[in-house]
Amino acid sequence: MSSMQEQESSAPLFPRRTAVVITVSDRGAEGLRDDHSGQVVADRLRAEGYELRFRVLVPDDMPAIIAALCRCADDEKVALVVTTGGTGVAPRDVTPDATLQVAHRLVPGMAEAMRAASLARTPHAMISRGVVGIRQATLIVNLPGSPSGALENLEVILPALSHALAKIQGDPSDCGQ
Amino acid sequence: MSSMQEQESSAPLFPRRTAVVITVSDRGAEGLRDDHSGQVVADRLRAEGYELRFRVLVPDDMPAIIAALCRCADDEKVALVVTTGGTGVAPRDVTPDATLQVAHRLVPGMAEAMRAASLARTPHAMISRGVVGIRQATLIVNLPGSPSGALENLEVILPALSHALAKIQGDPSDCGQ
Amino acid sequence: MSSMQEQESSAPLFPRRTAVVITVSDRGAEGLRDDHSGQVVADRLRAEGYELRFRVLVPDDMPAIIAALCRCADDEKVALVVTTGGTGVAPRDVTPDATLQVAHRLVPGMAEAMRAASLARTPHAMISRGVVGIRQATLIVNLPGSPSGALENLEVILPALSHALAKIQGDPSDCGQ
Repeated sequence: MSSMQEQESSAPLFPRRTAVVITVSDRGAEGLRDDHSGQVVADRLRAEGYELRFRVLVPDDMPAIIAALCRCADDEKVALVVTTGGTGVAPRDVTPDATLQVAHRLVPGMAEAMRAASLARTPHAMISRGVVGIRQATLIVNLPGSPSGALENLEVILPALSHALAKIQGDPSDCGQ
Repeated sequence: MSSMQEQESSAPLFPRRTAVVITVSDRGAEGLRDDHSGQVVADRLRAEGYELRFRVLVPDDMPAIIAALCRCADDEKVALVVTTGGTGVAPRDVTPDATLQVAHRLVPGMAEAMRAASLARTPHAMISRGVVGIRQATLIVNLPGSPSGALENLEVILPALSHALAKIQGDPSDCGQ
Repeated sequence: MSSMQEQESSAPLFPRRTAVVITVSDRGAEGLRDDHSGQVVADRLRAEGYELRFRVLVPDDMPAIIAALCRCADDEKVALVVTTGGTGVAPRDVTPDATLQVAHRLVPGMAEAMRAASLARTPHAMISRGVVGIRQATLIVNLPGSPSGALENLEVILPALSHALAKIQGDPSDCGQ
């Protein structure tokens, strides 16, 4: 048995490039709006080599979002969960708050980087409340609900995403910053 | 009855442009220092069309600040509460900590944007600990205690403020980011 | 007795420029890796006039980090505790989480400023999760584990550090911003 095969047989429980896209939208969950944001995010992740396990559509409801996040992290053990929608300041925008509830560790720099990039384009970016956190070995990233905003934010973190997922899953290689 | 009048009769409980300025200062509360910061912040908000409901002067005391914030959000139902003072690192600087206690949801991007703008002017901006949060339908914004610092920070969020307050109060119009 | 001597006799319990460097590293604690990061951080602080009280080497273990932080703040009453290591997203990277547990007040602007500066050099900076907080009258600063990253981040906050420590220890002088 080659060393390569041995590596494969000890494959991690959390394959590095599996992903789920959760769209958080009352109107989407009621079937009143097409899920363009979820689609463009999923397409972009696939183009980057991520294996999209499934997509979820939930209303702007704290327990529903929490349940979806926990299912992905605890049961399905996907490497990356990207949410789109519910990051604003409207009364029912609670995606970041649900994410804060389930995250074991926060990654504030990813959220800061996304906002700083968006802020260079529009002052409205400062009311995007998205957070990034880790639950078990799953990275959870909140993106805004508009297709253009979601894609723009995703592009900001893509250069660091693959390395982040490897580290979260315990890649022991030393990183020189 | 015209549609316009019907809109007025169903006016929201939280009129969009009401504001309160809370000055947090031990010396101010003792009458030992004029409240220049509160004055310049109030003047600037009035010039932007905000209706200043009242101004409050409280000492750097956690329960006093919490009581003032809750009165504005829960009883007076003002749209915007701007605090000035108590955002530093001195032992009695606890305005952000009081705000964190009462906020239901945080708006970190506004605080980040204010600090990033100030940091371009002085490295001391990095020890300004101000937070921005939402309680009920009231936005709470922490500004620093110096008149120039308070005004400079307020200018940073003004371009996003009106839209933010409308959204917080439930304006259902779709925003394309 | 001169005024100078009187000042000395009423010296604060927290002398302003005492510091401890805590290196958080499993391999370092096992003696499997030299503590280069702790050394360069200590050297840089000494060059800035800080009195290095001692250095500590702890594993990436939440209780061990918490105990070291509390000893420095509560028992030794040092003005500044700088940690290096454990700020990433690997499963055992918990230095920021331990710091959040013991901090009474957060100083988010210092962490934001360090990350923003690093982000201009590499996108990997966005997964550095370091926080800055205050416990009692001790400022705790998380730096990354690589010598270059730690030093680069330290340089960012040095221009504000001396003023911050003075204020934390209750310097009553008024600061205009």
